[in-house]
Amino acid sequence: MLGALRFIGYKFQAQYKGINMKKNAVILLSGGLDSTTILAIAKDAGYDPYVLSFSYGQRHDIELEKAKEIAKDSGAKEHKIANIDLRLFGGSALTDKIDVPKHNNVDEIDSEIPITYVPARNTIFLSFALAYAETIEAFDIFIGVNALDYSGYPDCREEYIKSFEDMSNLALAACVDANINNRKKMHIHTPLIDMTKAEIIKKGLELGVDYSKTLSCYDPDTNGNPCKKCDSCLLRQKGFNENGMVDPCF
Amino acid sequence: MLGALRFIGYKFQAQYKGINMKKNAVILLSGGLDSTTILAIAKDAGYDPYVLSFSYGQRHDIELEKAKEIAKDSGAKEHKIANIDLRLFGGSALTDKIDVPKHNNVDEIDSEIPITYVPARNTIFLSFALAYAETIEAFDIFIGVNALDYSGYPDCREEYIKSFEDMSNLALAACVDANINNRKKMHIHTPLIDMTKAEIIKKGLELGVDYSKTLSCYDPDTNGNPCKKCDSCLLRQKGFNENGMVDPCF
Repeated sequence: MLGALRFIGYKFQAQYKGINMKKNAVILLSGGLDSTTILAIAKDAGYDPYVLSFSYGQRHDIELEKAKEIAKDSGAKEHKIANIDLRLFGGSALTDKIDVPKHNNVDEIDSEIPITYVPARNTIFLSFALAYAETIEAFDIFIGVNALDYSGYPDCREEYIKSFEDMSNLALAACVDANINNRKKMHIHTPLIDMTKAEIIKKGLELGVDYSKTLSCYDPDTNGNPCKKCDSCLLRQKGFNENGMVDPCF
Repeated sequence: MLGALRFIGYKFQAQYKGINMKKNAVILLSGGLDSTTILAIAKDAGYDPYVLSFSYGQRHDIELEKAKEIAKDSGAKEHKIANIDLRLFGGSALTDKIDVPKHNNVDEIDSEIPITYVPARNTIFLSFALAYAETIEAFDIFIGVNALDYSGYPDCREEYIKSFEDMSNLALAACVDANINNRKKMHIHTPLIDMTKAEIIKKGLELGVDYSKTLSCYDPDTNGNPCKKCDSCLLRQKGFNENGMVDPCF
């Protein structure tokens, strides 16, 4: 119910904006299942998508090729890829030569902060999204964070996103007027934040997302085939199973 | 008086930390007058400086050469240069082919947000500083923002910095425990925020800063000589004059 109200909210907001102002939105797209779903949600809500991806020294650069194809297929207004080498700092299995943990099923996944955590990654990604948003006069940013499946990542929680949104309204020249009037202008949309993986997939399928084109695996082979054993593969597989399906990438 | 208390505060904090925990700090260094001064302040307060600079497509890349020399001379533990191409988005005279405004004296400087504003620049810089801090177990970041001389930049204001600090304490794995106890762990230090340029220079000279090695100009020639007409040059020159000196770079 809450989810349904949220989606109606996005639609209303975008349609309202259609009358009075631009409705450009920045969509953070990794090429994975979650971000591909938010791209579809933003489009369905009437926003013009300006897609932003990152080449950040991730081990699975093939993700970016998927992102390019997905952005193109979605009819995005623009797709920018920012090069930011997070290997400069290290500290994560996603960017360093640390083994990605593998499991046989979802019950084996730790509830601690995983080694795949990249320090300040979402903060850096959202900061670039702010710069992009300001230059295209957008006040809406969509990010596919999810607090349920990845409760271990501090920067996927609602309180973090809310705090980032507060900060962004103080950071930008485009928002200075808004703050004088004590209104928020910049909005960080997180349609998936309290959804299960199964609910996300269900929503995406309703919107016509072709999940065979996505790649969520932390450790794919060079052809982009998923390892089927990392946390991301297992959670995704479970989500498809709960929808009575097999993951189309498996 | 407030300034003096602030400095005593930094010293106390660092010395206290010296007993109980690491006292690494990330220092954002552009190679300009302000950031070179905060590097000296952080060192004087007893922090071990881990210096971070950015190659962000600025027109004046020679600044980075200055930063390297300054970091080396300061005995920094480490100096990292992050490559982030903000030209990807555009929208500023510092990164685009837009003329940097020139004036004959400081009174001609506009009070509006200047064209040298780079969208979300400090947010991006501080986000990288967070990633760096987390990997070296630092909870202190120094940034040379100043609200007086550059009141036009929204991301140089105290309320913005405070908000970024709040957000960073929710963003990082290293701070999650702190938030459970409702304490802040990560601190963004802005020693210069309410100082005039003359006061900053006075403080730096007391700490032995060699300002002849710094470069603040928005539009230097290829040899690193300042234009003497941009806002940054004029404000700096005024600061030296108020200390009864000539800018050693002029």
